[in-house]
Amino acid sequence: MLTPDDFRVRTLGEPPIRSPLNFSTVSGDGIGNFILDETIVRAKIELRPGDDPREDLFFEKAGPRERLFFDPATTRAAIVTCGGLCPGTNNVIRALVLGLHHRYGVRDILGIRYGFEGLNPAVGLPPIRLDPDFVEFIHRRGGTALGTSRGEQDAKTMVDFLRGERIDILFCIGGDGTHRGAHAIAEEIERRKERTGVVCVPKTIDNDIPFVRKSFGYSTALEKAREVIDCAHMEAKGARSGIGLVKLMGRDAGFIAAGATLASQEVNFTLIPEVPFRLEGPDGFLAALEKRMDARGHAVIVVAEGAGQHLFDEEPVLRDKSGNVRPHDIGVSLKESIVSHFAAIKKPVTLKYIDPSYIIRSVPADADDSVFCNALARHAAHAGMAGKTDVTIGYQHDIFVHVPIPLVLVRKKRVSPEGRMWVSVLEATGQPASFGLPMGEDPGADLF
Amino acid sequence: MLTPDDFRVRTLGEPPIRSPLNFSTVSGDGIGNFILDETIVRAKIELRPGDDPREDLFFEKAGPRERLFFDPATTRAAIVTCGGLCPGTNNVIRALVLGLHHRYGVRDILGIRYGFEGLNPAVGLPPIRLDPDFVEFIHRRGGTALGTSRGEQDAKTMVDFLRGERIDILFCIGGDGTHRGAHAIAEEIERRKERTGVVCVPKTIDNDIPFVRKSFGYSTALEKAREVIDCAHMEAKGARSGIGLVKLMGRDAGFIAAGATLASQEVNFTLIPEVPFRLEGPDGFLAALEKRMDARGHAVIVVAEGAGQHLFDEEPVLRDKSGNVRPHDIGVSLKESIVSHFAAIKKPVTLKYIDPSYIIRSVPADADDSVFCNALARHAAHAGMAGKTDVTIGYQHDIFVHVPIPLVLVRKKRVSPEGRMWVSVLEATGQPASFGLPMGEDPGADLF
Amino acid sequence: MLTPDDFRVRTLGEPPIRSPLNFSTVSGDGIGNFILDETIVRAKIELRPGDDPREDLFFEKAGPRERLFFDPATTRAAIVTCGGLCPGTNNVIRALVLGLHHRYGVRDILGIRYGFEGLNPAVGLPPIRLDPDFVEFIHRRGGTALGTSRGEQDAKTMVDFLRGERIDILFCIGGDGTHRGAHAIAEEIERRKERTGVVCVPKTIDNDIPFVRKSFGYSTALEKAREVIDCAHMEAKGARSGIGLVKLMGRDAGFIAAGATLASQEVNFTLIPEVPFRLEGPDGFLAALEKRMDARGHAVIVVAEGAGQHLFDEEPVLRDKSGNVRPHDIGVSLKESIVSHFAAIKKPVTLKYIDPSYIIRSVPADADDSVFCNALARHAAHAGMAGKTDVTIGYQHDIFVHVPIPLVLVRKKRVSPEGRMWVSVLEATGQPASFGLPMGEDPGADLF
Amino acid sequence: MLTPDDFRVRTLGEPPIRSPLNFSTVSGDGIGNFILDETIVRAKIELRPGDDPREDLFFEKAGPRERLFFDPATTRAAIVTCGGLCPGTNNVIRALVLGLHHRYGVRDILGIRYGFEGLNPAVGLPPIRLDPDFVEFIHRRGGTALGTSRGEQDAKTMVDFLRGERIDILFCIGGDGTHRGAHAIAEEIERRKERTGVVCVPKTIDNDIPFVRKSFGYSTALEKAREVIDCAHMEAKGARSGIGLVKLMGRDAGFIAAGATLASQEVNFTLIPEVPFRLEGPDGFLAALEKRMDARGHAVIVVAEGAGQHLFDEEPVLRDKSGNVRPHDIGVSLKESIVSHFAAIKKPVTLKYIDPSYIIRSVPADADDSVFCNALARHAAHAGMAGKTDVTIGYQHDIFVHVPIPLVLVRKKRVSPEGRMWVSVLEATGQPASFGLPMGEDPGADLF
Repeated sequence: MLTPDDFRVRTLGEPPIRSPLNFSTVSGDGIGNFILDETIVRAKIELRPGDDPREDLFFEKAGPRERLFFDPATTRAAIVTCGGLCPGTNNVIRALVLGLHHRYGVRDILGIRYGFEGLNPAVGLPPIRLDPDFVEFIHRRGGTALGTSRGEQDAKTMVDFLRGERIDILFCIGGDGTHRGAHAIAEEIERRKERTGVVCVPKTIDNDIPFVRKSFGYSTALEKAREVIDCAHMEAKGARSGIGLVKLMGRDAGFIAAGATLASQEVNFTLIPEVPFRLEGPDGFLAALEKRMDARGHAVIVVAEGAGQHLFDEEPVLRDKSGNVRPHDIGVSLKESIVSHFAAIKKPVTLKYIDPSYIIRSVPADADDSVFCNALARHAAHAGMAGKTDVTIGYQHDIFVHVPIPLVLVRKKRVSPEGRMWVSVLEATGQPASFGLPMGEDPGADLF
Repeated sequence: MLTPDDFRVRTLGEPPIRSPLNFSTVSGDGIGNFILDETIVRAKIELRPGDDPREDLFFEKAGPRERLFFDPATTRAAIVTCGGLCPGTNNVIRALVLGLHHRYGVRDILGIRYGFEGLNPAVGLPPIRLDPDFVEFIHRRGGTALGTSRGEQDAKTMVDFLRGERIDILFCIGGDGTHRGAHAIAEEIERRKERTGVVCVPKTIDNDIPFVRKSFGYSTALEKAREVIDCAHMEAKGARSGIGLVKLMGRDAGFIAAGATLASQEVNFTLIPEVPFRLEGPDGFLAALEKRMDARGHAVIVVAEGAGQHLFDEEPVLRDKSGNVRPHDIGVSLKESIVSHFAAIKKPVTLKYIDPSYIIRSVPADADDSVFCNALARHAAHAGMAGKTDVTIGYQHDIFVHVPIPLVLVRKKRVSPEGRMWVSVLEATGQPASFGLPMGEDPGADLF
Repeated sequence: MLTPDDFRVRTLGEPPIRSPLNFSTVSGDGIGNFILDETIVRAKIELRPGDDPREDLFFEKAGPRERLFFDPATTRAAIVTCGGLCPGTNNVIRALVLGLHHRYGVRDILGIRYGFEGLNPAVGLPPIRLDPDFVEFIHRRGGTALGTSRGEQDAKTMVDFLRGERIDILFCIGGDGTHRGAHAIAEEIERRKERTGVVCVPKTIDNDIPFVRKSFGYSTALEKAREVIDCAHMEAKGARSGIGLVKLMGRDAGFIAAGATLASQEVNFTLIPEVPFRLEGPDGFLAALEKRMDARGHAVIVVAEGAGQHLFDEEPVLRDKSGNVRPHDIGVSLKESIVSHFAAIKKPVTLKYIDPSYIIRSVPADADDSVFCNALARHAAHAGMAGKTDVTIGYQHDIFVHVPIPLVLVRKKRVSPEGRMWVSVLEATGQPASFGLPMGEDPGADLF
Repeated sequence: MLTPDDFRVRTLGEPPIRSPLNFSTVSGDGIGNFILDETIVRAKIELRPGDDPREDLFFEKAGPRERLFFDPATTRAAIVTCGGLCPGTNNVIRALVLGLHHRYGVRDILGIRYGFEGLNPAVGLPPIRLDPDFVEFIHRRGGTALGTSRGEQDAKTMVDFLRGERIDILFCIGGDGTHRGAHAIAEEIERRKERTGVVCVPKTIDNDIPFVRKSFGYSTALEKAREVIDCAHMEAKGARSGIGLVKLMGRDAGFIAAGATLASQEVNFTLIPEVPFRLEGPDGFLAALEKRMDARGHAVIVVAEGAGQHLFDEEPVLRDKSGNVRPHDIGVSLKESIVSHFAAIKKPVTLKYIDPSYIIRSVPADADDSVFCNALARHAAHAGMAGKTDVTIGYQHDIFVHVPIPLVLVRKKRVSPEGRMWVSVLEATGQPASFGLPMGEDPGADLF
């Protein structure tokens, strides 16, 4: 059970400096407002019969604070990007730099190179200087202008580096591994009673970080994934007994597979990690596919990379450098199962398998993601200057909020089999609600 | 002051039919749920110090109901699209047809042609029959497969037609004029004690309908508008003293101009209807532009079509067929003012003026809008089958809700000069908070 | 040595019918002209010192003929699409149907389904009827609206079918396998002294059919391939010691790999079938890559699927249904060689491998290809109606010509290592002219 | 009548330097070849009955020369871009810089700013230094990184500047005005017996420069124009009696209007400068449009900006700075004529007028144009280093050639009413061959 304490945001101390931003403190004067720490945002906004409307938990609202912890004239900020590529990362870097430079007057901004490796002097990657010229055009390119890497570094080493470089605020753009690393840094800093702030901007193309409704890059990823599904659809329709099979990203959560299905409306089967399925048997996936092929002569299937891991006998043993388990390759395995099945029943199919992953994640941000990245970064800059620490920028119910990092580490966000998204997928595909396996506990229940 | 009564949704009567949809009524069984009419969604989710957390207003949550008012076997539904083109309209038509046909088993669906004109027999446009074949590919095309028109028709005439054709549910896809017409139809039906439901799907590329956070087509419009701004940027940089001026849609609300500014990050001045401005004088727009040109040698300006109407001496007199006032052409006027001003001070500029409107609104929906249109239409189908009437589908805090039509007619949604969006625009452009005129009352205050 | 006889186009006989097309026979009257069979197009247009300008070979020019062999009022035409998907196939189908229907007044057009299989009654795929309604929107979709298949069918069986169905002209859209099949049909028809014309439209995304400078779909393929290379570039730059490796289509010819390299200008190494290379050794590819990595820290590599087949010990044994040899997977093999090499020398790299093939070939045609497909199809219709047979539509020096099918079967077109395209690739990549192996005879020499 | 003399390319003198490029002089060794000045390309490649195959004119083939006039170690080159924006301009600049720098070793390259104005010291725009860093990313942006301007500058002034700055080769990227200016510079240089080479790269989005089959930017322009026509199509179909009217670029030549019509295949009427038309009368355009509207209820019209100038009573008097006559606005005029006509006959139409010009010309180059720009620039670099002067890079029959500048100034290229392109447009639109006016002399006759 979460309690109000879990939502409490840490600060480095009393903020002694008046903000140079020209916001107002009253509504109705036509001037945007500073946000008070006491302005809160409800976590729960839907009430079913029997719910007590007085019970709720609240986030602290993000935004510019009237008083700052750091003096812009002497502040040194640093930005690091970690994990896999994600559309919009450069937009976040750019907006952080422009926000700190133009709005606050911070003139000393460092770019940490290649993720947390750049915080370990042993690796030998000195930071670079960031300014408006450096970032002028980067938002129109995919990837990250700072470079990235996976994997942990020792928190003590990184804090030694941060203090040695006299860095006041570290902005970390990354996923759950990055948040874990950032939290370790924040803890180590607290242990030393130092005063470096740690502010995250959540980055996950899988959209599986809690309290960020739609993480940046997800919108762009759906657009590209939809294009790929279109290709699979054309391949499926172009061949006799044609099947188009597309593997999309999503190790633990099927948001991309489900979202792309809804964006495309051409998918007949969507398989995600949250919904286990049997292949064989009268209620299994292959029987359903057979029925579809008999009826319509072609099919389009989307499978998330983390789906169907229960089908493999042994546990997957590979891990990437971030320590994430690398799933068995369900795409290739499913392809083989389907082809064998239809060969065995003497109804051979022409299956075209598409695995587009890097194509989806390395493109520039679309318009939606550009707007969103800009806002995330601006809020992170405000949080950092105000002395917030061990905090990430959340986005709930269309409002930007401060989320303590430990809170996002409790569990990953999942597609709820009972929620609106999955129901929509079932409607769009016409696939059965299950393939012979019970749904189990709803991972999307509660607040996450 | 709004009261709970304003949020009460009308129904045609007790729903006698069991829904054929295989949803469940309990959570935790892995099966999506029917929604109870008693499930409510908070209107207000942010609390400032002093606010009473017990005070609130609530929307009725949208979604499939366990009991239906109409028997799918005998239901005749009709769909009409009104007003200007908007990306995603065909997606809504398609998802309505597929939802009614495949999910509910409704086999009798009519397409009303060319807007409300198709509900007036005197115009002579008989409806067409809609089925899955008709809609198979329409979602990949811009425009509307049914045709559209502007302007009112007599409510009595339209109700005569609806009853004469034995239409049980009328789905209206359109903006505030359409909502007004739909409400008139619903009132006339109630007066006659008839049982035809009227359900709207809000369509406004300007994004100015309240209680729909981001209306469909808006995401696509930003993408196209961003492309156009890129062109203006290149034109401005390519010429000595180059200025790119782009007029975007937005008669009463600057959402497209503001959103495209944020998506592009290349705009130096954004002018919207909500923020009046002076041209002349030391605090006026031209002085600010002059300063920019002296400093940087080029500039990009975005102006919403409804901006700066206060600059014209007389009132605009043109109205389009929907009865909407057609604003003075601020784009052409601004172009001339700028060119004259810089000629007069002997610093001639090369101004390229771009007015892309039809290009932005007639394209197919992007991935985001496709997902959103599908959800809107599915919820509209659920509402219609359950006997809800005089209702539109809202989207607040990421939840689909039922909104009584009169509630959306209270006032249009506006960009709040004190809100996050406008503050972000000021940050992105670096333009002054005002051009010599006070902001006046904040149109974005309260719930709208 | 080719002789004038090789360029002679066969006809079914004297054309007795006056064309219904309103062309003129004189220049200067402002009206487009019928083309005479005697209008010829030079094969060789470049003269080096010593060449005799009087020596040349000539193609017959394509275009509308004043006299037709078939009477449009009674003509039955059929269209078949074979082989892999290729952007623009639907555009060709559409323009054939519209050209035959609207221009000539042919009302009886059949669509053969799923390639040559549809000409074998044993397969059980009856043809469908084609008209302007059927093709209205197909040009905006990828794939083929008729379906396709690979592989041969017996010529006698197919001719039996054609004659049984009273088909006068068979239009075959396909690659070299299809041309071989079409030629077999034409030969069988001649043997039987029947009067069915066989006209091909060359389709090869690999661009390896001779006498078609740039086959349809190639332009679109470059656009998509360029996008994929951009992704590989971003992946390479985003990681420490990052390498992006892209496998593109091209079993025998490297046109797509070379063209995409030129379109992108971000590639450092391009490997194609025409230019053999060593991996190991001081002049080998790996040494060159190592040098690049040491100097710049990242690299982008494009490899055609047919490149480097000499590196594999045994011959490839897989063949697809068309009988084409399926090459060893050079992409996966190269990936492993690179990773091992850099691991062995203790300079580990982060390699991202992208194999986009189906994504590139199943998209709709771009503007260029649309224009080109339309022209190819119109010329095919003219040729068919005039009684030309055993002929394909070529495009040399920007002029459409009739090419006897046997002439295109002499050999495939290749990228010449001494030609402008490969020289441009060497300039764009900066890669060495060879990787330790001699170039061998120039396959691009002579006319092909 | 053109003579061989008209095709003779000027050089600055005997080339004393051995080229550093590693090309070969023999075919068959697998190494690309230096091109001999004596290698020639036929101007005329199609022979009609009666033509004498021995009669012909020849272009000098472009490409790398074995001997250079300028020593790369001391060469100073300069690049200037003039006239309106055109997709691909930055690709040309980039490939020139990379070709000169990496291939030849030229280290001294200047960028002239804002067109010929940058060659007039009185304007006060000193050149900037160009190197690989400067051009790294510019090819992915529209516009020109050097800036551009229209209008002439005095040749003497410009030559004074060139000699003062010790510039050896001036590369001019521009249209016919630019070629005229470049020729004046070359003449003035010759008069002074100086040794500065002048090499042009033809740039015209209108595609009206002779001897360049498809000028760069044209392919990209068609793609964007096609998108706009799609929008017009959707607007026309969405409204009752809907008409979409699109004005496209093309003052003297209708290549963009005609090409976009063929790319789109949705246009019903295309009007270009080369084909005069009557509005009124039984054979006039309005009567034909009326017929179409009666039959189908909607129409799409594309008009080139230079079409129908004969409809205006007085001569157009406006000229732009390049001295080009600015045509009367046929778009607005046609719109008004159509609306009035249909109002007068009591069949009111809903006309949507789209004028997208700047949107089409300021976008980045597509893949085709990127490949083409790269080749043009590389050939220009070769020509410049070899001491060719008063020359532009042509592209005939898929071969790059040297064209003396005076030859391209003889006349502009036009769409021939009797040629393949216009015939294809008539087929695609179904419009009548004429609208009541004779075609007049064929401007496309002869070689142009």
